[in-house]
Amino acid sequence: MSNIDGHTILIGLMAYPIRHSMSPTMHNAAFEKLNLNYAYLAFDIDSDRLAAGVNAIRTLDMRGINVSMPNKQKIIPYLDHLDISAELNQAVNTVVNDHGVLTGYTTDGIGFVTDLRKKGHDVKGKRMVVTGAGGAGTPIAIQSAIDGLAEVKIFNNADGHFANAQRNAKIINERTDCKAQVYDLADQDAFKQAIAEADIYCDATGVGMKPLENESLINDPSWFKPDLVVFDTVYSPRETKLMRIAKQAGVKHVYNGLGMMIEQGAASFKLWTGQDMPIDVVEQQIAAKDAHANENN
Amino acid sequence: MSNIDGHTILIGLMAYPIRHSMSPTMHNAAFEKLNLNYAYLAFDIDSDRLAAGVNAIRTLDMRGINVSMPNKQKIIPYLDHLDISAELNQAVNTVVNDHGVLTGYTTDGIGFVTDLRKKGHDVKGKRMVVTGAGGAGTPIAIQSAIDGLAEVKIFNNADGHFANAQRNAKIINERTDCKAQVYDLADQDAFKQAIAEADIYCDATGVGMKPLENESLINDPSWFKPDLVVFDTVYSPRETKLMRIAKQAGVKHVYNGLGMMIEQGAASFKLWTGQDMPIDVVEQQIAAKDAHANENN
Repeated sequence: MSNIDGHTILIGLMAYPIRHSMSPTMHNAAFEKLNLNYAYLAFDIDSDRLAAGVNAIRTLDMRGINVSMPNKQKIIPYLDHLDISAELNQAVNTVVNDHGVLTGYTTDGIGFVTDLRKKGHDVKGKRMVVTGAGGAGTPIAIQSAIDGLAEVKIFNNADGHFANAQRNAKIINERTDCKAQVYDLADQDAFKQAIAEADIYCDATGVGMKPLENESLINDPSWFKPDLVVFDTVYSPRETKLMRIAKQAGVKHVYNGLGMMIEQGAASFKLWTGQDMPIDVVEQQIAAKDAHANENN
Repeated sequence: MSNIDGHTILIGLMAYPIRHSMSPTMHNAAFEKLNLNYAYLAFDIDSDRLAAGVNAIRTLDMRGINVSMPNKQKIIPYLDHLDISAELNQAVNTVVNDHGVLTGYTTDGIGFVTDLRKKGHDVKGKRMVVTGAGGAGTPIAIQSAIDGLAEVKIFNNADGHFANAQRNAKIINERTDCKAQVYDLADQDAFKQAIAEADIYCDATGVGMKPLENESLINDPSWFKPDLVVFDTVYSPRETKLMRIAKQAGVKHVYNGLGMMIEQGAASFKLWTGQDMPIDVVEQQIAAKDAHANENN
């Protein structure tokens, strides 16, 4: 029996394309478990509709939204306030509507750090290599630096995001105690050496996900030492080529991005509802969807 | 388990105040029964937010909305097309969004006629008295006239809606074969005589509903003959004072507005989804809510 009634409050996800997102499944399962009267729906909102989308938050008294590509930066001018997380990232993935006053947050970095901590790895005092400086790499590097990371080496192709990488390093060096450096990913010697010296390697590029599911930025297992923590922000597929190569090299701690995705959602959930997301229920729901998807393959 | 996922399409109800409406319960139960991927939520939209509300229909790719007080007339300028039902009523209770093109309909009158027909009473060739010429009385009189009613006598207080009553009679006389006349409700002799000559009496004033739950426009049981059909558009409470007096007078067919409410919803449901609403499921759901409300009293 549906739980929606006249009092149900809407929360949205505004991005494009977005209809295949797992977030609605995740949040609605959590609302139902905790008997919270919200409904979370995805809306195809491209940049040209973003201003109208933000108006809809206020008009429909939505409690808030998640924001994803291509709106994470573009939404900033439409908001009333930015939390420090959103200000440092210059990006927003979560908006909270307090009676018409809209505040932007970024919970992606919190999702990364929380997931790693729950898996037994505190970023505090560690050295990390991050590839990518886009929507995932930026908050991962910045939140880790805020949370006490000692050193971060950011590798990026000399493309559009390289300026991002430089901006991120500047912010980290100016605003935190972490030491940040930027490298061109084409410099494979520097990349190999950085991996050799790191405690954590995080691939935040999306390589390993369709249409790049047969690619990896690291193809030589000898680059890995067993006690490196290897984290791929991709969660579809659940195991990327990078992860397979790392496991083949004997790396003990190899993770996909599913836990980070859930934890960033949990952080948003807390901002909207004040409640802790029931992570176990969400994981069961996602596993059920996985099983269903496999049946249909 | 919640059925909402990333593909779920939003349908709304825009009115004020509206959070206590039964429509979300009704439509969501029907969507779930038929495995249709929609969610129906209520939004507090007063006239000052109506333009923004209509924008939200297009921005969020909503399939449509229901509209209620105070927006039924005011929404007309924002729509692209009016169906004949909405045009004659100069009021809209249902909007369908076809890829950004918004068409307004009125299903209230269809709800009344359909409910009466299912209860064994065809309006065709009948004489009807209607009290009230507002959001319920107008579509009831007009749709009944379209569907072959022979004669309608519209009684109304000489207040703001009296002009409505006159407009409705004019439209009925000009556009249908039904003969319409308007009377001041203060003329109790005319009212009593009209009731005596009628086949159907419909009270569409809202008298009998809070805060007027102890009132009735007819208080003398001797006005009623047993074969009169007495219909009160009020459905909360389920039995009004008018209905009690009519039953006391031995009237065999006495109905509240619940069936009309469900049938107008079914007509909207059909416009949005192309499917027949499973009326039995909706009735069960409403009965369950009733039982729950009684437990809590």
